[in-house]
Amino acid sequence: MKRDLDALLQEHGLDGLIIVGPGGHNPALVYLLGRPAHLTDAWVVKKPGQTPVLYHWPMERDEAARTGLPTRDLAPFALQRFLEAAHGDRFQAQVLQTLALLDDAGLGQGRIGLTGRVELGPHLSLWQAVQAARPGLQVEGRLAQRILRAARATKDAAEVERIRRMGAWTVEIVGRVAERLRGLRAGPEGLVVDAAGEVVTIGQVKAWVRQWAAELGVELPLAMIFAQGYDAGVPHSTGDDAAALRVGVPIVFDLFPQEAGGGYFYDFTRTWSLGYASERVAALHAQVKEAYRAALAEVRAGRPAEAPYVAACEVLEGYGHPTARTRPGTQEGFVHSLGHGLGLEIHEHPRLAAGQREPLLPGMVVTVEPGLYYPAAEIGIRIEDTVWIDEAGRPQVLAEFPHDLVLPLRG
Amino acid sequence: MKRDLDALLQEHGLDGLIIVGPGGHNPALVYLLGRPAHLTDAWVVKKPGQTPVLYHWPMERDEAARTGLPTRDLAPFALQRFLEAAHGDRFQAQVLQTLALLDDAGLGQGRIGLTGRVELGPHLSLWQAVQAARPGLQVEGRLAQRILRAARATKDAAEVERIRRMGAWTVEIVGRVAERLRGLRAGPEGLVVDAAGEVVTIGQVKAWVRQWAAELGVELPLAMIFAQGYDAGVPHSTGDDAAALRVGVPIVFDLFPQEAGGGYFYDFTRTWSLGYASERVAALHAQVKEAYRAALAEVRAGRPAEAPYVAACEVLEGYGHPTARTRPGTQEGFVHSLGHGLGLEIHEHPRLAAGQREPLLPGMVVTVEPGLYYPAAEIGIRIEDTVWIDEAGRPQVLAEFPHDLVLPLRG
Repeated sequence: MKRDLDALLQEHGLDGLIIVGPGGHNPALVYLLGRPAHLTDAWVVKKPGQTPVLYHWPMERDEAARTGLPTRDLAPFALQRFLEAAHGDRFQAQVLQTLALLDDAGLGQGRIGLTGRVELGPHLSLWQAVQAARPGLQVEGRLAQRILRAARATKDAAEVERIRRMGAWTVEIVGRVAERLRGLRAGPEGLVVDAAGEVVTIGQVKAWVRQWAAELGVELPLAMIFAQGYDAGVPHSTGDDAAALRVGVPIVFDLFPQEAGGGYFYDFTRTWSLGYASERVAALHAQVKEAYRAALAEVRAGRPAEAPYVAACEVLEGYGHPTARTRPGTQEGFVHSLGHGLGLEIHEHPRLAAGQREPLLPGMVVTVEPGLYYPAAEIGIRIEDTVWIDEAGRPQVLAEFPHDLVLPLRG
Repeated sequence: MKRDLDALLQEHGLDGLIIVGPGGHNPALVYLLGRPAHLTDAWVVKKPGQTPVLYHWPMERDEAARTGLPTRDLAPFALQRFLEAAHGDRFQAQVLQTLALLDDAGLGQGRIGLTGRVELGPHLSLWQAVQAARPGLQVEGRLAQRILRAARATKDAAEVERIRRMGAWTVEIVGRVAERLRGLRAGPEGLVVDAAGEVVTIGQVKAWVRQWAAELGVELPLAMIFAQGYDAGVPHSTGDDAAALRVGVPIVFDLFPQEAGGGYFYDFTRTWSLGYASERVAALHAQVKEAYRAALAEVRAGRPAEAPYVAACEVLEGYGHPTARTRPGTQEGFVHSLGHGLGLEIHEHPRLAAGQREPLLPGMVVTVEPGLYYPAAEIGIRIEDTVWIDEAGRPQVLAEFPHDLVLPLRG
């Protein structure tokens, strides 16, 4: 949790953390700010035992003030001020500017952690030059990420509430989609049609989702998956917008909205079959549900992070399906891992996957998402919920929604 | 333009460019892909004279194939394969994995450009270790960015059409907002009310915009500015959602939508005063319009990039306003530069600002956005259009919309 950062910095011998980049869609920076902020480019400096300080450009002074953090105006550090000393060399001026900022932050010497979601090229060159110019300075990138990952792996009550609220909005949207689909009819050639007899496409369904997401004020920065048949059988295929909805063909609907500006995510999947489901699909869906329940029971504090994965594999292997552990690299059966931590990124620590021995902890928020994929048979099935390990160490699904496979159509 | 990349790589002595990171909201990678793609993590390798090659994970094989680029599956490069040789050290395995990928791409030796929108910390450590492990390899970050910046600074016909289409959607949304605002009335205490007599807030206006953006399938990854009075006077303040709209107070409405998934932007600002405008605001608005026209006339191939800024400053200084060149660091008057290139990022090369001597070129797409700011007087005014320098070297506004200040209310 965020309150662990001070201890983590001290434990790893860092004099401070510096997070660079924009105020939104920049997980480490948003973590220290508390919320996304409309800042094009900023620094947040966190030293052990101290409140983080936000360095901002003057045009964004009011946005900066709204974060509630102590702020420092970057105006005295404008690049122009360093151009003369750099003999007009813009890159050298950036190096001097960065050194001046480090000195201002009291981190011009010693061991600092550095990260932020930025353009790698210029930052790689800049920070290599900064280190070369200041031998007493040691810049630790991977360690910064490890410390933040460790803190972020467990969520405090406020974070859980925000993820829970995103969950409520997610199932609100999914419920509206289900309701609208139930109002459609089976038309000719196995296609699904609306009241006017027009075929309904995947693109239209995605447009409804985007509209409702906008109405609720949430973002879909990574879009969504609404994939049918063969596409459903390839876990990360997003679905063909031009394709018409078909009756009796499984649809994987994976929705992962984020708080506006780049805050907390939710992650959720249901598999639907419109009108009816074939016996094979119904049987596989029941097996995935069984794997889901077995996995969920293992999402408990103290269990190793691989335990839910192992539980799901045992169920699915028992039904004769290949899994990634019995047949590495398989593209049929249970082809991926069981789940992942979730927060300001869609994929965070821990991974619920083979070989992950570290214990699950209270406060972790993870996805549980077993699936079965047979693309050649036009079958893909996945059920996913986001789960919080509560203070008592037990799993709590953060947004309830039925796992039903068949969405009946009208008439 | 993209077709210049081969020459730029050769001119700067690079054996290849490597772009890392996700397939969306990652400008350099989207540039080489042509469009955003649903790839969580990928490599694009571009060598002089060759089509870029996309390295993708197996679950995303169909999304990768859709890009139309030659693809290579990352399955043989899974981290697990390198853990043994790395004696179980995950970081060392990443170094070996990266070296294997470089060798596969034929870029394991020599001089390569590297960039991508990623988390800085882990990549900084990784690429420093990769360079240390392979003395024959020289990784150039800043140079990669410079080459891409140079290519991206001029847009080909297809890019201009995409920006133009974003412009059409932008003015469609802005037009709908204007129409809805014109349907409102002046209520008690200078507030604006709807047909039911309820006050209308900035948050409501932003919700309309989000809805319409979703309907049109465009994203607002950087939100928007709809800022009134004092907030309008601080250029990057986004506006107070809870504040009621007021009659006769200038509103800066700055909208910068992006193609879904992280494609091309548009950038557009109008300043409105609901019901009426004070004499002072009307006069300042007319001065900004005059500065806009003077600046636009200088957005021509062959003129230095600072010329439009200088032209706007001359107009506004002539009316007695401070500018950033007469009073550096001013927070009143014309406090910012004139504009910026625009494309897959909202701020690209060139900058239309003081001291920018490089010539404007056909194919550049830049914003022209003079403004006047007097926050203490509750005044902020900005007019902004996105302008393409066409093949003949002349400025073409990519989406027309009236510059009118006053939006009359009903009754």
